[in-house]
Amino acid sequence: MPRHEREQQIIDVAVRVFAKRGYHASSVDEIAELAGISKPMVYLYLDSKEGLFLACLRREAARLVAAFQEAARGAGPAPELRLYAGLSAFFVFVAEHRDSWVVLHRQASELSEAIAAAVAEARRAVMSEVASLIRDGIRESTGDGAIPGADRADGADRGHRAAQLGDEDADFVAHALVGAADSLTDWMERHPGQSPEGITLRLMNMVWVGMRDVLDGKVWLP
Amino acid sequence: MPRHEREQQIIDVAVRVFAKRGYHASSVDEIAELAGISKPMVYLYLDSKEGLFLACLRREAARLVAAFQEAARGAGPAPELRLYAGLSAFFVFVAEHRDSWVVLHRQASELSEAIAAAVAEARRAVMSEVASLIRDGIRESTGDGAIPGADRADGADRGHRAAQLGDEDADFVAHALVGAADSLTDWMERHPGQSPEGITLRLMNMVWVGMRDVLDGKVWLP
Repeated sequence: MPRHEREQQIIDVAVRVFAKRGYHASSVDEIAELAGISKPMVYLYLDSKEGLFLACLRREAARLVAAFQEAARGAGPAPELRLYAGLSAFFVFVAEHRDSWVVLHRQASELSEAIAAAVAEARRAVMSEVASLIRDGIRESTGDGAIPGADRADGADRGHRAAQLGDEDADFVAHALVGAADSLTDWMERHPGQSPEGITLRLMNMVWVGMRDVLDGKVWLP
Repeated sequence: MPRHEREQQIIDVAVRVFAKRGYHASSVDEIAELAGISKPMVYLYLDSKEGLFLACLRREAARLVAAFQEAARGAGPAPELRLYAGLSAFFVFVAEHRDSWVVLHRQASELSEAIAAAVAEARRAVMSEVASLIRDGIRESTGDGAIPGADRADGADRGHRAAQLGDEDADFVAHALVGAADSLTDWMERHPGQSPEGITLRLMNMVWVGMRDVLDGKVWLP
């Protein structure tokens, strides 16, 4: 079996074991045994228990980001439909790859700096995807963008200011949305009857409808 | 100095050291020295490094929950004003007690089961406060509650169903909102010019306005 395949096989087993036992209680012995491979070979391929965990983390994070991106890109040009498709792919991923999500969400923080950095990078990748969808949505709503038919762009200076405002706002909304989605995976676990699509729809309605209204000038004040 | 005061003094120092160095790199030696107390005395009072971290975590979590509750309760009867005041107190706390938040938010997860349990409990306390404000808001909007002047309650059965729906919805919104607020503390750190009140207002506008519209039947569909 070629090295790459062998590594993937070890990682498959490791994700299951780390998800089940937690990082500290997991042993390379058990992972090697379940993967049907010798322990020295695991160390040769993946260096250490930490290296093995990092490999799990990076692969699952890359899969999650790819699922989000592919769904979003496949959903046509409207930003809110792309956001909906991306969020839906996220909740479907979490529902279908529970072990991956346990490793990414529950166990990764603070194990080591290398692991924390890998988690932060994955989060940044998702955040920047989401922010760019939101930004497109804001530009479309305010007419400040290259959307055909947009008729509200009035002057380069105002357009420039709107774009800056839009970037900061988009980043704000992306942080709120990614944090909300993270947290809702706990809710989803306690409500197994709820579909990932239904959860996405509720979240879109909470956030997107409110955001559009704010852009339309319908502002809540205390 | 009485034991309780001595303990508080050790915890004050420990929060600063844990926030600065992280759990693993922190030493009880340094904490004892900075607190001006002998190391055996620290162990006598707080049992172990883990016990010390747990004491920090519990105290700071209790302070955060109390800040949220007091602000919410002091803001009058309208649920959205109570939610606004509570969220605002949260962001003010994070801005003013950065060390406490680093300990609660970044370092607590997965250090040990006891620590994870303490974090989960604090999160549940905040979540249930938020959910109850949301629930009050939903009931007020749908007229299903003891709000004077509510005129849409029509029959116990319908009222009971609405209350059930309301609980699940409120719990959903609370998860989304608490996750969003958690995540926005990172955004706040990168935008030091933004006030906690401004951040709260943006978040309220994203979430509350959208939720009210959904309750009014203005639903987004893909």
